[in-house]
Amino acid sequence: MTTVDLNSDLGEGFGRWTLGDDEAMLGVVSSANVACGFHAGDPVSIHRTVRTAAARGVAVGAHVGYRDLAGFGRRDIVVPTPELVADVIYQIGALQALTAAAGTRVTYVKPHGALYNAAAVDERVATAVATAVAAVDPSLVLLGLPGTLSLAAGEAAGLRTAAEAFADRAYTPAGTLVPRGEPGAVLHDPDVVAHRMLRLVTEGVVEAVDGTVVAVRADSVCVHGDSPGAVAMARRVREAFLAAGVALAPFAPASASA
Amino acid sequence: MTTVDLNSDLGEGFGRWTLGDDEAMLGVVSSANVACGFHAGDPVSIHRTVRTAAARGVAVGAHVGYRDLAGFGRRDIVVPTPELVADVIYQIGALQALTAAAGTRVTYVKPHGALYNAAAVDERVATAVATAVAAVDPSLVLLGLPGTLSLAAGEAAGLRTAAEAFADRAYTPAGTLVPRGEPGAVLHDPDVVAHRMLRLVTEGVVEAVDGTVVAVRADSVCVHGDSPGAVAMARRVREAFLAAGVALAPFAPASASA
Amino acid sequence: MTTVDLNSDLGEGFGRWTLGDDEAMLGVVSSANVACGFHAGDPVSIHRTVRTAAARGVAVGAHVGYRDLAGFGRRDIVVPTPELVADVIYQIGALQALTAAAGTRVTYVKPHGALYNAAAVDERVATAVATAVAAVDPSLVLLGLPGTLSLAAGEAAGLRTAAEAFADRAYTPAGTLVPRGEPGAVLHDPDVVAHRMLRLVTEGVVEAVDGTVVAVRADSVCVHGDSPGAVAMARRVREAFLAAGVALAPFAPASASA
Amino acid sequence: MTTVDLNSDLGEGFGRWTLGDDEAMLGVVSSANVACGFHAGDPVSIHRTVRTAAARGVAVGAHVGYRDLAGFGRRDIVVPTPELVADVIYQIGALQALTAAAGTRVTYVKPHGALYNAAAVDERVATAVATAVAAVDPSLVLLGLPGTLSLAAGEAAGLRTAAEAFADRAYTPAGTLVPRGEPGAVLHDPDVVAHRMLRLVTEGVVEAVDGTVVAVRADSVCVHGDSPGAVAMARRVREAFLAAGVALAPFAPASASA
Repeated sequence: MTTVDLNSDLGEGFGRWTLGDDEAMLGVVSSANVACGFHAGDPVSIHRTVRTAAARGVAVGAHVGYRDLAGFGRRDIVVPTPELVADVIYQIGALQALTAAAGTRVTYVKPHGALYNAAAVDERVATAVATAVAAVDPSLVLLGLPGTLSLAAGEAAGLRTAAEAFADRAYTPAGTLVPRGEPGAVLHDPDVVAHRMLRLVTEGVVEAVDGTVVAVRADSVCVHGDSPGAVAMARRVREAFLAAGVALAPFAPASASA
Repeated sequence: MTTVDLNSDLGEGFGRWTLGDDEAMLGVVSSANVACGFHAGDPVSIHRTVRTAAARGVAVGAHVGYRDLAGFGRRDIVVPTPELVADVIYQIGALQALTAAAGTRVTYVKPHGALYNAAAVDERVATAVATAVAAVDPSLVLLGLPGTLSLAAGEAAGLRTAAEAFADRAYTPAGTLVPRGEPGAVLHDPDVVAHRMLRLVTEGVVEAVDGTVVAVRADSVCVHGDSPGAVAMARRVREAFLAAGVALAPFAPASASA
Repeated sequence: MTTVDLNSDLGEGFGRWTLGDDEAMLGVVSSANVACGFHAGDPVSIHRTVRTAAARGVAVGAHVGYRDLAGFGRRDIVVPTPELVADVIYQIGALQALTAAAGTRVTYVKPHGALYNAAAVDERVATAVATAVAAVDPSLVLLGLPGTLSLAAGEAAGLRTAAEAFADRAYTPAGTLVPRGEPGAVLHDPDVVAHRMLRLVTEGVVEAVDGTVVAVRADSVCVHGDSPGAVAMARRVREAFLAAGVALAPFAPASASA
Repeated sequence: MTTVDLNSDLGEGFGRWTLGDDEAMLGVVSSANVACGFHAGDPVSIHRTVRTAAARGVAVGAHVGYRDLAGFGRRDIVVPTPELVADVIYQIGALQALTAAAGTRVTYVKPHGALYNAAAVDERVATAVATAVAAVDPSLVLLGLPGTLSLAAGEAAGLRTAAEAFADRAYTPAGTLVPRGEPGAVLHDPDVVAHRMLRLVTEGVVEAVDGTVVAVRADSVCVHGDSPGAVAMARRVREAFLAAGVALAPFAPASASA
């Protein structure tokens, strides 16, 4: 039976502020990328999110970011390597303890926002992240875009890696994402998105913007959950998978036997 | 052979700012209470401090505090219990990961500043801290003032506790600290301090402000390191111990066989 | 013609996070209490809010709070007086510059959350806030609950003060608020709330929880705007005023002739 | 009589942490670049610094930086233009209020660290800073390196600009600074530094690294104060000026008649 993972960014509130509907999304996804306090995520809301994840068998990943609450981790910051390594270790550890207290554990790491983008193309940043992950726990899986320096650095550091596809994004004929800002970069029709992801999971291909069909590796499909429309689209993708007999399962389950 | 522990607050810089001389103090003490980022301590400087601690066989404790960089964790903040529990878990975890990456581990927890004071007298706060520590790792030792609600809550939570004395503080006939601000509350003569602490360790008593001699439990002696004079006093205490044949050893060593 | 002011807390987002619907509320109220960055409010969102306020003739007040993004300024913090005075001055100044850049000016100050509550009952805190306001600009008006130490300290510092009523709160026979948490403390029916506030504005009285009628001073009525229901209630109060011929006008207009 | 200004970065502590000796430096310089809270500077320590500056007739400038306490404002951050404009306005306003409360006023603005460097070479950043300064108060002077985009943007925004030289830095034959990291970029001999600055002020030239003599515009000379050696060098420069009959005076005095 074919299985695939659905992941989403959760725990992205801070104190009084909430973002997205974690409760709803934890009924949709099989893996939760949980903010670790640097770009979002205060400890008590992280705690709440990972408890719910534990209760529903959703795998927990550390969604590590730049120290930038005001910019939500989306601003490029040139962080010197030793600082960056330590910042990533710190965040993973903080989440590990909250997750352990919730009866589960962190099984993977996914950089967030500007750090995700930098790690994809900047070898220094990619290596810093991979080094940090391996220093905390070499059994952690590194999640990222296939073909990027991020996953290459993870493999070089001895980590297992997982590749993700973005459900609502268009692809180039080379199998990379059409940059945001270009026409058609973001898809809005839930049925179209669900159909594309189902094809990706069952056939390993996606139709690119020029109509050609391109092979794309995807151990996990990333869906958004920060708006009611986003939750609905995520549900549609999940339903399309289940209806086609594709099972949802974390690529990095908390229990080895899961 | 008599042994005792010397502990001090370290890792209390933040970014460009330093406080105290961690390098020097890690040659004096046997246990380092390392700031975890909420009242002080950025990840890269924490990382540096725990690496040095690991190299010198100094035990590492989590010096958890209120989220209050501007107030250095010294301001009373009424933090609701779930937030406080999660904040403490978060800080311990962050330090655990940095310490693991440095090849050692966190073996104890000591609240900092206003949190230390609140946990001593406020059962809600004491219980929140103890609950958090036990949730992360029930083998962690809780360090605090003997006779306080902090240690009582730790014991109630199933934790091992350790009692500390303050080297440069005067004691009441009841065996409690003379409050800061009262005359004679703080001692400044290194020889006097060293002599008092040696008597405490070897005889289990300290001379109170009224001249009476009172029994005080002390598994560890806390010394300051945030000024050149403080480092000198810490060294003097250490030397007095060694000269009298009292060995220094962590009350919670990183290796079980230490 | 009778006039009254409607005030609401605005600018309470931070970076990616929003709270309430500032656009909508700036079409309802005559005075906006704008967060200044310590409990909420990043500069660019403050800027946006005060620009809209300027365009609609809504007066801008500095909603100063404790430095506590994680607790949204709702946690009691014991801030030493010099720090508190400087913190309040800092926040007012920051808002003044953003407001000046938007073509208007700050005309009043209202403490937020835990600082508001502390200033009402703690003379030290009340005096610190009043001292800070007077130090920045003695023509600033201090907004608060009638009969509190906050307004008394403002008057002692030579400030003009304005008293506010809370639209959705029940009153005791003594004219004070029924504490949150007691039964009936918060009112939910927009019609009841609107009717009560209209009576307050036109007759100077409010019906207390025991049915007695009590005199309450109110230069301004505070309405919430942080939920769709809150916005609807605020609109209902406004409409009740206008329908009864009560005009809305800031108690501290930006232009002297307003 | 020839006059020149000496400026230095002050108010760079945060809470418990101090940096440099503001008291000493306020007896040396004629202009103080005071941190505004984003890269350093908590309100109460800013308040203390500007009170001393006021008492000694030292002009106060807003040393605005990126929001980056952990990186001390020295890390490149790509801040979108509206955020950057608002961040700079916010910081200037905060300092203005604290300075007004101290009986003086902010007369100029100097970007700090990574923002200083970015404004020198990146037109978008330079324009954002100049726009913010002009929006707060078009009579504020913008201080920066001569020949940079920063000063050009200031002039384009209608601001008066002032050019600074760095006392302890070597110059290229083109009149620009030898980049840090290159051999000889930083000068360490107080006598050499003092002699160079005196020649610059009296003759308008500096000897470049290749021995050629190059004209450099300098309305102000920047000296460091964050170490005992730096304070001593600053004093040496001041003494050399005074001994040669060069008077120290702010380029942007608080009183028009100063």
